Amino acid sequence: MEHIEYLRPDEIEKRSFEIISEELEKRGIAISADKEAVTKRVIHTTADFEYADTMCFSERAVETAKKLLAKGAHIVTDTQMALAGINKKALARHGGEARCFMADERVAALARERGVTRAAVSMEMAAGLAGPVIVAVGNAPTALLRLYEMIRKEIWRPAFIIGVPVGFVNVEAAKEQIMKTDVPFIVNRGRKGGSNVAAAICNAIMYDME
Amino acid sequence: MEHIEYLRPDEIEKRSFEIISEELEKRGIAISADKEAVTKRVIHTTADFEYADTMCFSERAVETAKKLLAKGAHIVTDTQMALAGINKKALARHGGEARCFMADERVAALARERGVTRAAVSMEMAAGLAGPVIVAVGNAPTALLRLYEMIRKEIWRPAFIIGVPVGFVNVEAAKEQIMKTDVPFIVNRGRKGGSNVAAAICNAIMYDME
Repeated sequence: MEHIEYLRPDEIEKRSFEIISEELEKRGIAISADKEAVTKRVIHTTADFEYADTMCFSERAVETAKKLLAKGAHIVTDTQMALAGINKKALARHGGEARCFMADERVAALARERGVTRAAVSMEMAAGLAGPVIVAVGNAPTALLRLYEMIRKEIWRPAFIIGVPVGFVNVEAAKEQIMKTDVPFIVNRGRKGGSNVAAAICNAIMYDME
Repeated sequence: MEHIEYLRPDEIEKRSFEIISEELEKRGIAISADKEAVTKRVIHTTADFEYADTMCFSERAVETAKKLLAKGAHIVTDTQMALAGINKKALARHGGEARCFMADERVAALARERGVTRAAVSMEMAAGLAGPVIVAVGNAPTALLRLYEMIRKEIWRPAFIIGVPVGFVNVEAAKEQIMKTDVPFIVNRGRKGGSNVAAAICNAIMYDME
């Protein structure tokens, strides 16, 4: 068991990232510079080094996401938890807003009417926003399935997809589908992910811009 | 890769728990009945079976937590994300309220003045609430360290501790300290945990009461 280190609050995060870097080196895992900030923050959020192997990025994904955020892209997420975790002040500095439509009563009514998930309907609400949208899915594979369908049918194309739902039903397949589109993405291959991971990815990109 | 299963929204969760049960059996992991609902929901939230080995419960922990919730105990958490994830309607049915003091400006001012974390100060705010308090820590080991200190000095004793901070600095040691107190607990030993895990534990206990 570790001993307790008495560090100032601001030193704790710095020391955590040092430990992550040391352990990645010990494990012989090298992360390319463009993926480093995102991957390390995901490990920081989960204490799970498996993410170093499973995180997938489209060509120049982080650079693309930064450019979108710099011109005021909005972030739409599929859970209140991810919404709570996204640094909304950092996002607002560039003009963007974070939104989640899951608690919207109209979304619930539409989902009931059609027998689909609220997450699927909430992606259609995202399509209604003005300006470029980064979709960050941390929970519902059905959100990704609906996005894929909208992209394929040329109904709507989000500017960027952060696809990290967690779970056991349709999660892996939904992620693989997204990686076959031409939409820039950051996806965690496999079952793992979560609202915390979605928020961590958004924040890592924003912090790396500063 | 899995194929896409077309299930009604309400069937997805049921199927997920079936898969979790099947895989636990395949791995030869038996979870005792009193710990099953909580442990399986944590795995459902993280897709990480490691939790089956690392979740620690004090004697009759879940039963104790249910009794507290039934008499209207409040839940205080250390992150807005966990607060967003806790089912507040289910909690309110028994009279309890979920609170997080992290965004409180007075907490920030007190933390700055004393050079401690906001999480530590927010535990002192929790001590000020009337009635029994379940503390659910998903992020900050400093919250657990402060709780331990308050318990040891007989300043305040929460009714129950859910101790699942995640991270690399002081996290393991803080969890071990809590398990040495006489306060009933659910703790995830090691580095792993998170706001999502804290919320999942709270919700699992409440759903199991219904």
